[in-house]
Amino acid sequence: MRISQYLLSTQKETPANAEVISHQLMLRAGMIRRNAAGLYSWLPSGLRVLRKVEAIVRDEMEKAGAVEILMPMVQPGDLWVESGRWDKFGPELLRFVDRNNRDFVLGPTHEEVITDLVRKEISSYKQLPLTLYQIQTKFRDEVRPRFGVMRAREFLMKDGYSFHLDKETLDATYQAMFQAYSNILARLGLEFRPVLADTGSIGGSMSHEFHVLAQSGEDLLAYSTGSDYAANIEKAEAPLPTSTRAAATKEMSLVDTPNAKTIEELVEQFGLTIEKTVKTLIVRGDTEEAPLVALLVRGDHELNETKADKLPGVLSPLEFATEEEIRAAIGAGPGSLGPIGLNMPVFIDHSVAVMSDFGAGANQDGKHYFGINWDRDVTMPQAADIRNVIEGEPTPDGKGTYAFARGIEVGHIFQLGTRYSQAMNATVLDENGKAQTLLMGCYGVGVSRIVAAAIEQNHDDRGIIWPDAIAPFKVGILPMNMHKSHRVTDIAEKLYQDLADAGIEVMFDDRKERPGVMFADMELIGIPHTIVIGDRNIDNGMFEYKNRRTGEKQDVPMDQIVEFIKNAVC
Amino acid sequence: MRISQYLLSTQKETPANAEVISHQLMLRAGMIRRNAAGLYSWLPSGLRVLRKVEAIVRDEMEKAGAVEILMPMVQPGDLWVESGRWDKFGPELLRFVDRNNRDFVLGPTHEEVITDLVRKEISSYKQLPLTLYQIQTKFRDEVRPRFGVMRAREFLMKDGYSFHLDKETLDATYQAMFQAYSNILARLGLEFRPVLADTGSIGGSMSHEFHVLAQSGEDLLAYSTGSDYAANIEKAEAPLPTSTRAAATKEMSLVDTPNAKTIEELVEQFGLTIEKTVKTLIVRGDTEEAPLVALLVRGDHELNETKADKLPGVLSPLEFATEEEIRAAIGAGPGSLGPIGLNMPVFIDHSVAVMSDFGAGANQDGKHYFGINWDRDVTMPQAADIRNVIEGEPTPDGKGTYAFARGIEVGHIFQLGTRYSQAMNATVLDENGKAQTLLMGCYGVGVSRIVAAAIEQNHDDRGIIWPDAIAPFKVGILPMNMHKSHRVTDIAEKLYQDLADAGIEVMFDDRKERPGVMFADMELIGIPHTIVIGDRNIDNGMFEYKNRRTGEKQDVPMDQIVEFIKNAVC
Repeated sequence: MRISQYLLSTQKETPANAEVISHQLMLRAGMIRRNAAGLYSWLPSGLRVLRKVEAIVRDEMEKAGAVEILMPMVQPGDLWVESGRWDKFGPELLRFVDRNNRDFVLGPTHEEVITDLVRKEISSYKQLPLTLYQIQTKFRDEVRPRFGVMRAREFLMKDGYSFHLDKETLDATYQAMFQAYSNILARLGLEFRPVLADTGSIGGSMSHEFHVLAQSGEDLLAYSTGSDYAANIEKAEAPLPTSTRAAATKEMSLVDTPNAKTIEELVEQFGLTIEKTVKTLIVRGDTEEAPLVALLVRGDHELNETKADKLPGVLSPLEFATEEEIRAAIGAGPGSLGPIGLNMPVFIDHSVAVMSDFGAGANQDGKHYFGINWDRDVTMPQAADIRNVIEGEPTPDGKGTYAFARGIEVGHIFQLGTRYSQAMNATVLDENGKAQTLLMGCYGVGVSRIVAAAIEQNHDDRGIIWPDAIAPFKVGILPMNMHKSHRVTDIAEKLYQDLADAGIEVMFDDRKERPGVMFADMELIGIPHTIVIGDRNIDNGMFEYKNRRTGEKQDVPMDQIVEFIKNAVC
Repeated sequence: MRISQYLLSTQKETPANAEVISHQLMLRAGMIRRNAAGLYSWLPSGLRVLRKVEAIVRDEMEKAGAVEILMPMVQPGDLWVESGRWDKFGPELLRFVDRNNRDFVLGPTHEEVITDLVRKEISSYKQLPLTLYQIQTKFRDEVRPRFGVMRAREFLMKDGYSFHLDKETLDATYQAMFQAYSNILARLGLEFRPVLADTGSIGGSMSHEFHVLAQSGEDLLAYSTGSDYAANIEKAEAPLPTSTRAAATKEMSLVDTPNAKTIEELVEQFGLTIEKTVKTLIVRGDTEEAPLVALLVRGDHELNETKADKLPGVLSPLEFATEEEIRAAIGAGPGSLGPIGLNMPVFIDHSVAVMSDFGAGANQDGKHYFGINWDRDVTMPQAADIRNVIEGEPTPDGKGTYAFARGIEVGHIFQLGTRYSQAMNATVLDENGKAQTLLMGCYGVGVSRIVAAAIEQNHDDRGIIWPDAIAPFKVGILPMNMHKSHRVTDIAEKLYQDLADAGIEVMFDDRKERPGVMFADMELIGIPHTIVIGDRNIDNGMFEYKNRRTGEKQDVPMDQIVEFIKNAVC
C-alpha cells in the first residue's frame, strides 16, 4: 500500500474524551472515527486489523468443527417474548417497530434466533451434536458507551451455539471451544488467561471467560501460583478456614464509639485487631416478609456481590439498602450495625463463623459490642462464601496460593443447558423416538474488542506495538527525502515491489514528508518491521532495519533484505 | 465437508409463498431460512456462496484502487436531516430512537455517513482522488419484501464512494468502477449487461446499472443490435422521427364513439390505423396554478413514466390523476380525452408531433375527433421524448436497432456530482488554497441479491446449476451403499482426503441414504462436479464423473481422478 493512495489520518494530539490508551491510540493512529456515542467507523488500517482477528477466529472455529451461518441483525420481538427475555433484558435491548408496527430488536446476541432455527431444522438425535457460529454486527444500547470500541454500542462479535442430546457431548464441545479460544488468543500473539466465570444474565451452569491481560483491564482475575485454577474475582472461591473457632475468653461489653463510623476508625481508636472485627452490610430481600437481609464479613474482607446475589432470599440483581431503610428497620445507621438483636435474615462469611471475642456494631448509633462470641451471645447464622478472595491465601484446589492480575474480557463460553431450549420448546427425537429437550452451549468472542485489548497490552509512549499476526501491515518502507533523490526513489520502489512479490504486506510511505513525521506515523500505527532507505544507506549498500517491539536496529545488506524480512515476519 | 457433520436442510416440496424460482430453490436447497418478512438466516451452504461473491467483489475493488472501510449500520438521524433525505426518504428508511431519545436510522445506504467522514478527514486536494468502500449489512423497510433475498429488508451490499476535485478524475474512477463491475460479473460466471440508467432518488448526472440477464428479471433492458448502447427501458432514448409531418388531407370531424373507451376499441370499431391515434394521460402538476398536466403519446406507444417524471411542471414522483379529478377539470372521463380544448399544460411525444389526420378523444364522454391536424385545429404543444422505445426501431447512436432482454439489477454506479457534498458542505482546499465542493461518485453491488440472480439464470427442473466460481462446494462425492461396503467406504474416504489435499472443496455425502436421495440433494444444491463410487466402479477401476451443467457422464480411471477434477474445476 502506498500512503499517497490511502486514507491515513494520524493525529499528534491525544484526543479529548478518550479515557483509555487503546481508544486514544486507535483515534490517533487513524484506525477508527466516532460517528455518535458508541458508534464507530473503521478506517482502512483499523479494518485490516479487525479482519485479521476475524480470520483467525473463523479458522479456529472451522478447525473445531463449528459450521458458519449468518443470522439477521434485526430480530422479531416475538422470539424474545417466548424466551422470557423481552421483559428481563433492560434498555440495552434496542427495540423498535417496523412500518407495520411489529416489534423488532437489534440483536445484542442470538440465543433466541438460533434456538428457533434449530428447533425447525433439527428433528433427530442423528443430526447432533451440532455447533453453529456466525461473525456478525451486534448492537447493545449501553447506558454509558465508552473506551472506544472496547464498550461500543455497535460491535463485531463471533457468537457460536452448540446443540446436544446429552451432557457428554456438551462437555466435549465445551472443551473443544475452550481449546479453540486458547488457540485464537495464542495465534493473535496475546497474553491471556481463561478463568472460571459467573454465568450472569445469559444463564447456565458452567462458564469460562477469556481475558487479555492488561494493567488497564476492568476485571480482576485471581489465579493459582501452583496450578491452572483461575477465576474472575466475582467467582473465585475462598478457601474454607483451616482453624476452628477458639473458645471465648472475653465478656461481651457495650462500648461507646461515637467517632468510629468505619472499621478502620474502630481499629485505630480502640486498638482492635482488624481480623477481630466484623462488617455488616444490608441488602434487599426478595420477599415482603423479609425485605432486608444482613451480610457479615470480616473487617479486613470485602463482600463479593456476585456471590451474595445468589443467596436464598436476596433480591437479584443485588441492591444495597439505603441509610433511610436501614434506620427504619434497625434504628441505627450503617456505621453501627452488628449481629446482636438483628431482626432479619443474616448470612455470615465462612471466615466469620470461626471468629471469637470479636467486635461489631451494636445496632445503636455510636455504640459497638466488643468480645462477641457466637452461640453464647447470639445464635450463629448460616455461613456461606460471600467474600472476595485475597492475594496469598490458598486456592481451592490446594495446589497454590492466589495471585491477582487484571484482564479485559474478550471471550466467554457457557454451558447453557436447557435455559433457552426449554422456554422455546426445542426438542429432538432420541433413539427411542421420544422428544428430548436440547442441551445447549454458547460461545462468544468480542472481535472488535480484541483489537482494543491487543493495544492495551501492546503499546508504548510512541504508539501501538502490533503482534505480527494482526498488524495492519507487516513492514514499513521509509524512504528519506525520496522527492529529492532519484536513487532513493528507485530503490524504494524496487524494494516495495520485491516485498509485495514475496507476499508481504507493506506500508510504503511515498509522501513528501519530513523523516520525523514518517517515523512518528510508522511508530504510532505500530508497524512491526521498518526499513529505512536514505542516500547514506545506498552508499553503504545496507538498509537500516528497525524492530518496533524491541527497538533493535540492524544494518542489512541490500541484496539480503527480502530474505531477512521473511525470517523476521512471524 | 462431511454431510453427517453439517447442517444440510434440503426439502423436496416447493415451499408455499415462494414466488420466484431462486427463492424456491434457496429454500429447498437449504441455503436460507426466513426469520420474518424480508429477514433471512443464511444456512451454511448459502453463506458459502455469499462469501464467495463477497470475496470476488472485494478483490476487484482492491484491484481498482478502492480502499475498504466499515461504517456503522446504525446512523445518527442528524446527518439525514442535513442532507435533506430525512424528509424525502419514505418509510423504507427505518427510524428509531435510542434510550436517550435521539434519532437514529438503520442504514439503507451510506452517502451521509461517508460524506461526514470525508469532510472531517480530507482537507487538501492532495489527498484526492480517493475511493472508499465497504461490504456491509443494510436495511430497507420495504413495503412488500418478497422473492427471498432478491428483495429482502436486511441484505448485504458493497457500497463504494469516490471523492474528487475535478470532473476528469470522477470520470476516470467511474470508468474504473464500470470495468471492475464488469470483471466481477464475468468472474462470477454470469451473463450480464451494463445499461444506462436513471439516477432516481440517489441523484446525480450519470448512471449505469449492471443486470444479470434472466427471463424472470423485473427490469426490461433495451440494447442495440449493432453497438454497445444499452439502457434500462426507463432510460432508453427513443429515436427522433425521421419523417416530417404530412400535410392535412382530412377535415376534423366530431364522431360518436359510445363504445370506444380504449384505443383498441376505437381502432377496431372505426377502422382506424393505430398509428393515426393518440392517447392522452393526465398526471399531477407541481403548482397550484397547474394542478394537472396532459401527456400525449401515439396509440401504439407506451408512456415512459421515468421520462415523464422529469418534465417541467410535472409532480415528482409521478402521480396519475384520478377519474374524479379528470372529470372535474375536463368534464369527460379518461376514455374520451384529447388535445382539442384542453385547459392545462400539454406535452406530446416527438412521434405525435409528426402525426396528421389523427384521431383522439373530444373531451366529451362518448365522442372523438377524427382528422385532427396540428396548428390547423389546435396549437401544437411542446414535444419531448416521453415514450418507451420499441423493439426494432433505431437506437440513438444510429448503429443498430433496439432489442429487448430482461434483467435483474445487481449493480448501480452513479456520478453524484455535488448532490451530497453541497448539502453537507464537504469541501477541500485546492492548489490555490480555495475551498472547493467535492465531486462524488457512488457505486453499489447487491451482494446477497447476486446469489439469487445467479440462480435465476442458472437452474433446471432438478435444482441449481452453480457456476464453478461461486458453488458452495466444487465437487460432490457420492458413495453408493457405503455402510454396506467397506471397499466403497475406504475408497470414498481416500478420495475425500486426496481432493482436500489438492485444495478442492468437497461435499462428501457420508450419510446412510438411498442413492436416489443423494443424487437428488446433490443436483438440488447444484454441485458442479460429482463423482459416484459404487462396487461396480471399483470392479472396473473407474469412477463415474458427472457434470451438473452439461449432464455429461464420463468414466475416469481411479488413479487419474484428482488430475481430472483439477482440470475440470474452473
